[in-house]
Formats: sequence, C-alpha cells, structure tokens
Amino acid sequence: MAARTFTLAELAALAGGTVQGDPVLQLSGLAPLESAGPAELAYFNHANYAQAFAQSAAGAVIVAGRFAVASPGRNLLIAADAALAFARIVRAFHPAPQALAERAPQAFVHPSAEVDPSARIEPFAYVGAGARVGPGCVLGPNAFVGEGAQLGADCRLGPGAKVLHGCVLGARVSLQPGAVVGGDGFGYAFDAAAGEHLKIPQVGIAVLEDDVELGANACVDRATLGETRIGRGTKIDNLVQVGHNVTVGPRSILCGQVGIAGSAKLGEGVVLGGQAAVADHRQIGAGAKLAGRSGVTFDVPAGEVWAGFPAQPHRTWLRNTAAAAELAELSAEVRRLRAELSRLGGKK
Amino acid sequence: MAARTFTLAELAALAGGTVQGDPVLQLSGLAPLESAGPAELAYFNHANYAQAFAQSAAGAVIVAGRFAVASPGRNLLIAADAALAFARIVRAFHPAPQALAERAPQAFVHPSAEVDPSARIEPFAYVGAGARVGPGCVLGPNAFVGEGAQLGADCRLGPGAKVLHGCVLGARVSLQPGAVVGGDGFGYAFDAAAGEHLKIPQVGIAVLEDDVELGANACVDRATLGETRIGRGTKIDNLVQVGHNVTVGPRSILCGQVGIAGSAKLGEGVVLGGQAAVADHRQIGAGAKLAGRSGVTFDVPAGEVWAGFPAQPHRTWLRNTAAAAELAELSAEVRRLRAELSRLGGKK
Amino acid sequence: MAARTFTLAELAALAGGTVQGDPVLQLSGLAPLESAGPAELAYFNHANYAQAFAQSAAGAVIVAGRFAVASPGRNLLIAADAALAFARIVRAFHPAPQALAERAPQAFVHPSAEVDPSARIEPFAYVGAGARVGPGCVLGPNAFVGEGAQLGADCRLGPGAKVLHGCVLGARVSLQPGAVVGGDGFGYAFDAAAGEHLKIPQVGIAVLEDDVELGANACVDRATLGETRIGRGTKIDNLVQVGHNVTVGPRSILCGQVGIAGSAKLGEGVVLGGQAAVADHRQIGAGAKLAGRSGVTFDVPAGEVWAGFPAQPHRTWLRNTAAAAELAELSAEVRRLRAELSRLGGKK
Repeated sequence: MAARTFTLAELAALAGGTVQGDPVLQLSGLAPLESAGPAELAYFNHANYAQAFAQSAAGAVIVAGRFAVASPGRNLLIAADAALAFARIVRAFHPAPQALAERAPQAFVHPSAEVDPSARIEPFAYVGAGARVGPGCVLGPNAFVGEGAQLGADCRLGPGAKVLHGCVLGARVSLQPGAVVGGDGFGYAFDAAAGEHLKIPQVGIAVLEDDVELGANACVDRATLGETRIGRGTKIDNLVQVGHNVTVGPRSILCGQVGIAGSAKLGEGVVLGGQAAVADHRQIGAGAKLAGRSGVTFDVPAGEVWAGFPAQPHRTWLRNTAAAAELAELSAEVRRLRAELSRLGGKK
Repeated sequence: MAARTFTLAELAALAGGTVQGDPVLQLSGLAPLESAGPAELAYFNHANYAQAFAQSAAGAVIVAGRFAVASPGRNLLIAADAALAFARIVRAFHPAPQALAERAPQAFVHPSAEVDPSARIEPFAYVGAGARVGPGCVLGPNAFVGEGAQLGADCRLGPGAKVLHGCVLGARVSLQPGAVVGGDGFGYAFDAAAGEHLKIPQVGIAVLEDDVELGANACVDRATLGETRIGRGTKIDNLVQVGHNVTVGPRSILCGQVGIAGSAKLGEGVVLGGQAAVADHRQIGAGAKLAGRSGVTFDVPAGEVWAGFPAQPHRTWLRNTAAAAELAELSAEVRRLRAELSRLGGKK
Repeated sequence: MAARTFTLAELAALAGGTVQGDPVLQLSGLAPLESAGPAELAYFNHANYAQAFAQSAAGAVIVAGRFAVASPGRNLLIAADAALAFARIVRAFHPAPQALAERAPQAFVHPSAEVDPSARIEPFAYVGAGARVGPGCVLGPNAFVGEGAQLGADCRLGPGAKVLHGCVLGARVSLQPGAVVGGDGFGYAFDAAAGEHLKIPQVGIAVLEDDVELGANACVDRATLGETRIGRGTKIDNLVQVGHNVTVGPRSILCGQVGIAGSAKLGEGVVLGGQAAVADHRQIGAGAKLAGRSGVTFDVPAGEVWAGFPAQPHRTWLRNTAAAAELAELSAEVRRLRAELSRLGGKK
C-alpha cells in the first residue's frame, strides 16, 4: 500500500527513536500487530495488546521504552513518545496525496466566485456567489461553499461537507464528510403576546482558524452577531455540537459527541472527553481537561482536571464516585446506626 | 451590513422599550459589545459581560431594566423583555431575504412533481415523483425531497437537508443543513429461529407542522405506522434525535443533542435542555422543563421542572446533587460514627 | 397503501399466531390503534395503550397472550412473540419495493468503477474510481461511494449517505440518509516541540458485514491501520458514533446517539441503550446489555446487564440509584446521628 520502503534505522532517525535489533531491516509499510508480516512495522501502545505483541509476526514494532524490556529477539523501534513516533512514521509511509487541479463539469461554481486554478472541485460541489476558494483546496462531491464564504489554502471539504454563507476557514482546515460550518445558532425569544418563539436572525459568522479539523457530521454554528471562533490547530471529532458565539482556543481537543452551548469560552489547549458538555456562557481555562461525560455548569480554572456532572475536580469526583458505588450499603449502614443508637439512647 | 438605519427612538418603539439618552441617534446595525462602534447597537444580557458593557464603544445598548441603573452617560434601549426586544431589532435590521424564484438547470425535478413557480430550486437539489413544493420554498444545493413528500409555503431546506418519501412539512418550516426528516425508525424484532434481527418496515411518515425549525444534522424518524409529529412552532437544535412515533407538542424547545426514544409523547411548550433524553413511551406534560442532561425514565407531570438521571423534581435534584458532591466525606463520617458507637456501646 | 389483502387466518398462519374471532375477516393493511378502521389490523404492545386498544375501531388487533384475556368480542391475532408477528405482517403488507435498474444521467460514475447493470444510481450520486457496486444496489440522490470502495449485493444508500475510499459493505447493507462510513478516525499525537497536534493519517478501512443497518447521520470511522468492523446483522441507530479500530460483533444493537471510542471491542449480540458510551480499548462480552446512558469504563463480562456511569451491574445500580434519590435525606440523617451521638457520648 505504501509507496516506498525504509530501513528500521531510517525510520528510527525520522521518528527520534532508537533501534533494538536489525537496523537495516527493510520495511514496506505499517500493519496492526495481529496481521503484520515480516516486512511490516506494527505499533504496541496499550497493555491490552501484550499477547498480540508477543505473538505478532511483524518484522519490527514501535514501542515505548517501558514495553521494550520484555522482548528479546524482537526488532524494536523504541521511542520516548511512541505515539509521536508512530504518527511520524505513518506520515512517512503515507504522505498526503497531491490532488490534481480540476473543476468537474458537474460542479456548480458561481461566476462571481474566485476559485484558485490549483483547487480541485469535484462533481456536484457548489460554490456560491462571491465565495473565495484558496490554492490547493479540495471540495469533495456534494460539498457546499456558500455565498461569500472564504477558504484559505489547502482546505479539504469531504463529501457533503458544508461551509455556509460568509463563514471563514483558514489554511489547511479539514472538514470530514457531512460536517456543517455556519448553520444558524439556536436563538429565539418567546413572544408571549403572539404565543410563539420569535426567531432571532443569526447574522454573525463562524471562523475556523488554520489547521482546524472538524469531524464527520459535526456542527459549528454561526454567531448571532459577531463570530463563533475555533482556534488554530484545534481538533474536533464526529457529531460534536458547537453553539453560536462560542470561542474555542487554539490546540484544543473535543472528542466525539461533545456539546458546547452558546457563548461558552474555552481557552487554549483544553481537552474535552467524549460526550462531555459545557453549559452556555461558561468558561474553561487554558489547559483544563474534562473527562468523558463531564457536564460543566461552573467555570473551570486553567490547568485543572475535572469530571462528572455537575463537573468537579477529578480527585473529588473519584472519591465521590467510589462512595456512590457503595451508596446502597452506606444507606443500610446509616439505618443500622440509627437502630443501635436508639437502643443505646433509649429514644429516637 | 444592514440595509438601512434607524434612530434609537424608532427602534425603541419597534421593540416596545424606552430610550435613556439620545433618541435621535442614528444606528446602522448591530454588533457585539466588544466590537460595536458609535453607529452600532449592542446587547447586554448576562452579568458575565458587565466589563465588556462598561468598556463598549457601542453607540447604544439594549438592556433589561436591571442593567440600566449603573450606566450613566450611555445611550440605552431599556426593555422589560430585553431578549424579545433584541430579537425584534435584529429582525428589523435583517429582514429575511426574498429568494428569487428559479429552477437551476442542474437540479432534478421529477416530471410528476408539483413545484410552485415561485419556489427556488438550487443546483443538485432533488424533487421526487409526485412531490409537492409550495410557493416561496427554497431548496438549497443537494437538498432532497422524496417521492410524494409535501412542503407547505415558504419552507427552507438548507444544503443537504432531506425530507423523505411521503413526509409532510407545514408552512415556513426550516431545515438547517443536513437535517433528515423521515429516515426509518429503529424497529426490529428478533427472530430467534433465524438468529437475526428482522427489520420492521417503517411505513408511516413524519409531519412537521407550521414554523417548526430543525437544526443541522438533526433527525426526525418516520413512524412505523401512522406518524411522528412535531407540533407547530417547535424549535429543535442541532444533532437532536427524535425516534419513530414520537409526538412533540407545539411551541416546544429541544436543545442540542437531545434524544427522544420511540413513542414518547411531549406536550405543548415542553423545554428539554442540551443532551437530555426521554425513554420510549414516556410522557411529558405541557410546560414541563427538563434541565440539560436530564434522563426521563418516568412520566413528568405538566408544568414541573425536573433534572438529573433518572430525572426527578429539580429541587430534589439540587439537594441530592449538593449531598452527592460531599459523598466521600459523608461516607467517612458514617465510618467515624460507627467507630464511636462501637466504643460507646461496647459492641459492633 | 398496501398492495393486497389477507384474511386474519392467513396472517395468523404467516405470523405463527392464532385467531380469536373471525378467521375470514379481510384485512387491507395496518394502522395505529387510534386510526385503524374495520378493514385494518392494529398492534397493541404496551400497557400505556390499553385505553386506545379498548376504544379502537380496528378490524383486528395483534396482541401477546397476556393482553388477549380482557377483550371479548374483538378479533385478535394472538402471538407468543407479538413483536415478531407484527414484523412479519408488516413485511407481508409492505414487501420491499423492487428498484428499477437505472443510471441517472445526472449521476457521476467513474469510468473505472464496476457498477452492476442491475443497480440503480440516482441523480447526483457519485461513484469513484475503481469502486465496485454489486447487483441490486440502490444509491440515492447525492450518495457517495469513494475510490475503491466495495458494495455487495442489494445495498441501499439513502440520500446523502457516504462510503469513503476503500471501505467495504457486505450484502444488503442499508445506510440511512447522511450516514458516513469511513471518515477519518480521530487520531493525533502532540508534537511538543512544534506545539501542535500532528495528524496520524488514517490509512485503514471500515467494513460493514452483511445485513448491517446504519442510522441517519450515524458515523463509523475508518481504522488507523487495519479495519473498523461491524459484524453481520448488527443494527445501529441515528447519530451513533463508532470510533476507529472498533470491533462490534454480529447481531448487536446500538441505539440512538451511542458513542463507542477507539479500539473498543464489543462481542456478539451486545445491546447498548440510547446515549450509552464505551471508553476506548474497553471490551464488552457477548450478549451483554447496557442500559441507556450507561458509560462503560471497565470491561463488561459476557451476558451481564449493566447500567450507570461508571457502569456497574444493573442490580447494584438500581439499589444505588434508589439510595441516591434520597441522598439529601441520608445526609441529614447522618447529621442527626452525629448530634445525638455527641450528646450521648459527651464529646464530638
């Protein structure tokens, strides 16, 4: 599958690791521990897979130092940060394909749109009036770029991904299939006299800075006024919802099915585990980490690790959760204490 | 950005508010507190933004009465219901654009479909056999209207929004990008003899009454038999799931990532906070409100406010949640009581 | 709506049930209890609908034995497994429509793709280079089949459903509208020197075996290396997220908005209730059932029923949850015990 081969020593150099075993072993690609053959490199990164590692026919294996000790006779590429080494090696074997410039005759590009000649526009993609599509962009089939939207260089819109009118993507922004940037924020005011929810036109935009990635069918709403903004290098997983006027700082990580309500503000390098949620107007300081399923209803200070719903510091949550797992017993014990105390005191 | 200007007094009259300051100030548009200039109107609606309000260069600010007292020298538009005033003013500055009737040559419209000549059908939109599309409708690029589906007047389907065969939208229904109306309900019966889940054909429909709005990538399933129905004026946020045969009453609000399981029945004016869920066949009375993350496993009476999982009355939940935040300490206290009681009583 | 009529006895034979009442009653279709007429068959499956059953004008009703006793004078089709009987009868009245082979001139099919002549390719569908589409497949409008993807016989891709490059569907796989198979897994390694999340190219695939169904806007990510695999006959509801390198066994059920993090491994016949989640690398044994909203952070043994977050055995969860609903009172009781003990013991 990969285009070329590397020696184990070349890969170790590229990944900043060291070789244990045969440095001139030729490797033609990567494969999982279970299926890798003698010319393939595998990756061992979790204690769950110790047996798969032991039984693997892989020619060599990328490991962290702690896994290296117990594997005599194996060819290893040992790296202090094995995940980073793995990432670099996958990238070496699988360089990003260079998309050929082409404008499919089945695409729709408004005459007033400015599409760089180096961009690739696939069938049934749509580029609206006044939109700008930068050099090297790829718009997959059925992708949508609305009126006046702007895409920087080398953006990739998967099939059916959508950037609505006026929204702005920086360079190298990647939208997985079906992702939506700039849908209307959820804003209504109840008109009691008319007995109806009056829609507040959402006239702001959404901005995704350079190197942002948005997962499949994830949504980032446009602002009511002003902008919703996702900072540089932030990565957002599938089916995440980011509400109107939210700010997410750079280099943050939002895992699958996270929900961020309107006007919340996340600092730089925030990490939200899967299905976590943040209430509207809440603030999360830089570097804070929220465990999966956390529900943030209070502001979270920078650098802290919180969990639970309502979210609380992770250590507190661990203690409370351990107690909660024995709550029925605790309740029974309190009833016993009551009974004994009543006997002792001769009264209720 | 806005098409015309208003004086502060004109806007106050339109919004049902009063002016504090210069009534003839000319305003050309709306902007956030942080970026508004001297010819722009901003909106101050949350204590978080007191400093932004104090420092804003906005020509005038919409506020509720409680925020008006501490702002001498500012031009204010004071409204009892500031959110409603804001909504009306945004609508004044940003009237809904009138879409030009057009049938893009790149669209597919089945010869037997009835599309009103005033409708706009954009490229790569699809209208199936026997479908009806009412006057003033707009079908965005890649939108889908299935066989026999019916759209009332002035519906808007964002890019990639889908209304499947036989489903019915009232007037002014708005589907944000990627929303799906009428996917198959999740219905199977396990055939033990064959050892497989037998699909139950979902032969009902989904109906969205007038003025319903459905968020980006949200889903409303068709019924097994009969219909799934969303009542007039109900607003549904992004990535919400509404199962088969559900009924949602009019003027309800379903926030982001809510999930409603099959055959649940929600009354009029129900509000579900983000990521809340309702189990199958449960009933929620009119006007009930469920906090974010609520999980409804019992019927909820009309007018009540519930929270938590399993959902319980909000006051109970608040008390229990406060106690849960100190559960580890409670458990320790019970152990201390046990020890002291043992000493006192001379026995376990 | 249905194409033909059956007698009640014919339907009972077909469904493996028995008739109480008139065996030669002609029935022309199915309808809900509330709207069924005298030539229609309804279905009574939940105690909530006892009144609707009592008042129904349906010609006959499918019921389980336990509901049959209290209904003299009604025509009943009594089945031990009423849900299965219902499924079979719906299928009899509504046989799957046979799609006509056709390749819409508005579709894009790459010259190197192999599309069986019996397949139906609707407008604005896209079939990439080297893709294979088996006999009897239906690709709805705006559906996407990427480069080198393979679809077995009789697959159905709803409008806007997407199968990305290299991914593989078995026979009779059904993708509801907007579903995405093979979006990139969420894999990054933090490069501290560069201060950025380095994307790990996701070069594996996703495989959906025979008879898998994937709900509207649900997502199954491709693997980093190797494959993400959904076993034969597994059914997945709307807006579900399945991460990279996950394995789901055959005949499992994943309800709406479930989230499965990377490398989790689910056995055969696993059931996950709505909004349940499984942490990365966790394992769930065959036949295990997780209640709605469960959050799996430990491995779950085969055959067990678990609930809650962190997930625990269902019986434990029920007891703990009952205690949690009275936690504030328990806390108050402990304070009272402390006060009484202090009085008794003459000390804190």
